[in-house]
Amino acid sequence: MTIAEIAEQAGVSVPTVSKVLNGRADVAVATRERVQQVMAESGYRRRGSTPRRRTGLVDVVLDRLDSFWAMEVLRGAETEARRTDRQVVLNTSENDEPGSRAWLDRLSARGSDGIVVVVGDQDPETAARLAALEAPVVLLDPVGGSDPSFATVGATNWAGALSAVEHLIALGHRRLGVISGPPRLSSSQQRVDGYRAALRRAGIASEEELIRYGDFLVGGGHEGAAALLDRPEPPTAIFAGSDMQAVGVYQEAAHRGLRVPDDLSVVGFDDIALCGYLRPALTTVRQPLARMAAEAVRLAVDELRADGDGTAPRLELATDLVVRASTASPNSASPPG
Amino acid sequence: MTIAEIAEQAGVSVPTVSKVLNGRADVAVATRERVQQVMAESGYRRRGSTPRRRTGLVDVVLDRLDSFWAMEVLRGAETEARRTDRQVVLNTSENDEPGSRAWLDRLSARGSDGIVVVVGDQDPETAARLAALEAPVVLLDPVGGSDPSFATVGATNWAGALSAVEHLIALGHRRLGVISGPPRLSSSQQRVDGYRAALRRAGIASEEELIRYGDFLVGGGHEGAAALLDRPEPPTAIFAGSDMQAVGVYQEAAHRGLRVPDDLSVVGFDDIALCGYLRPALTTVRQPLARMAAEAVRLAVDELRADGDGTAPRLELATDLVVRASTASPNSASPPG
Repeated sequence: MTIAEIAEQAGVSVPTVSKVLNGRADVAVATRERVQQVMAESGYRRRGSTPRRRTGLVDVVLDRLDSFWAMEVLRGAETEARRTDRQVVLNTSENDEPGSRAWLDRLSARGSDGIVVVVGDQDPETAARLAALEAPVVLLDPVGGSDPSFATVGATNWAGALSAVEHLIALGHRRLGVISGPPRLSSSQQRVDGYRAALRRAGIASEEELIRYGDFLVGGGHEGAAALLDRPEPPTAIFAGSDMQAVGVYQEAAHRGLRVPDDLSVVGFDDIALCGYLRPALTTVRQPLARMAAEAVRLAVDELRADGDGTAPRLELATDLVVRASTASPNSASPPG
Repeated sequence: MTIAEIAEQAGVSVPTVSKVLNGRADVAVATRERVQQVMAESGYRRRGSTPRRRTGLVDVVLDRLDSFWAMEVLRGAETEARRTDRQVVLNTSENDEPGSRAWLDRLSARGSDGIVVVVGDQDPETAARLAALEAPVVLLDPVGGSDPSFATVGATNWAGALSAVEHLIALGHRRLGVISGPPRLSSSQQRVDGYRAALRRAGIASEEELIRYGDFLVGGGHEGAAALLDRPEPPTAIFAGSDMQAVGVYQEAAHRGLRVPDDLSVVGFDDIALCGYLRPALTTVRQPLARMAAEAVRLAVDELRADGDGTAPRLELATDLVVRASTASPNSASPPG
């Protein structure tokens, strides 16, 4: 019997069952007793009370398999899985529906030693179903406000954005635009906050018109750059939320006859292999994706789960600024033509 | 008991056991009887004589997880696996040793519905071990001379190279260099043969000095381009064996102050997503990697294996020439400077 089924039978929510399991005080006595009774009747045994069957498999759940980003995640997960004599099973929401009843049934039948979830969005119902699985679940690069009973691994998004924008300010830029990811993502918000903090420290007023949000793909960078460069006083530098967005910024700049970095400085985020092949090579914030994925696998198979107070470990791995050729002082060269 | 163990116990080779299983005539009567006796004593049952246990897992074996190429293969394999309600398990020779005793033991214990092997090199011993597995094995983009009992899926390398070089000849090029992959790979040889055929058809004598071999990565393209451009009469066009090699050609051209395509035309092979982000965008031969991987999974789980005469299906999927901006007529622009 899963936690979700216990919740349903007791007529309470999954978090309430979770609180009872974790011995939390903020549950009414009658509610606690009802939940405990359902658990006793169903013979529910808490995870950890009996050793789980070792399957030798670790599940990685991704949106899609179409980016350097996904490849780095798989590479890191696979290396760590192999270190503990396990293998990685692919799950994509493109071809399947992780969290769906069919997916959960298959996973329960087959068994898994741990599940790393790298899916951007999660509705509360999916989160509850994941939480009720026998295998430990770790969220990689999680969205904001995720269930505190999941362990998470992310990057220092705030500090990474701060270092990128401080680099641009040190070069002499005073009008700086930022293109971040979807606003509902915690990582997007943290990067915009890092941008704001850098401006504040330098005594530069931040303007809402210079802050754009979009998807993390080429199109998001394209649209964001077009909106920023259409301003009456366009920025001289753009900090993009991903390297793919930076490619979109490059394309929009080329379209307008602007040269990078002479007319426009560009900084990306991620440091995927592409950065070195772009001309000019892209200055970016390196996110240690493979190491983040490896840490997520480690947390999952070590079952470093929620402790007594219901909070699970949350790791943030450090980012690095990698300076290449896409940033320079504003108006460092003579105007084009 | 595996075929390899039967071979060992009967004191014969794995191919001999395979011949006996397939009812081939070219086995001495005494040998056949010895093999059949060992099989009878061990209770060996030929694959297919009893339905295998369905595991819902398909294994993909790759050298490394660090390229668009590998990602395309995984994407195709995963899509086809999901279509038959299966999932992909990752195996890399970077972290493991596919074909090793430990790997085979793990695979046998866990079970697999099919194995797609994308590893470049295979010693005969590994091939024999793979052949002896219960699960069907399919080779993707195989090296030349692979065991004919394996089903294989590849691309039309010869025809792809032909179309690339014919495109360059049609633009007016008469001195054309080629950089191919490692000479031991069947795909490398087929591409050089396609290059030779295109020259022959156009009445252009081929010169051995204009044919280079290297690894399929950026470094291979770099070294090949340096050697070609160092010739007293350098080529005006280079056909590279992979898109990553083409990146190396771009870098070497830039290093020498040569502009692509004005001073040097470049064609790649694969059509990975990178091609569209390069400046100029790369003309290339599109290899349908995802579809090739999907076909390999299909062959594996359908158990379209060796038939009576010991030969397995061999598929070649068609390539397409994708013309972008890296090819032009020779000396199409005024000289640099």
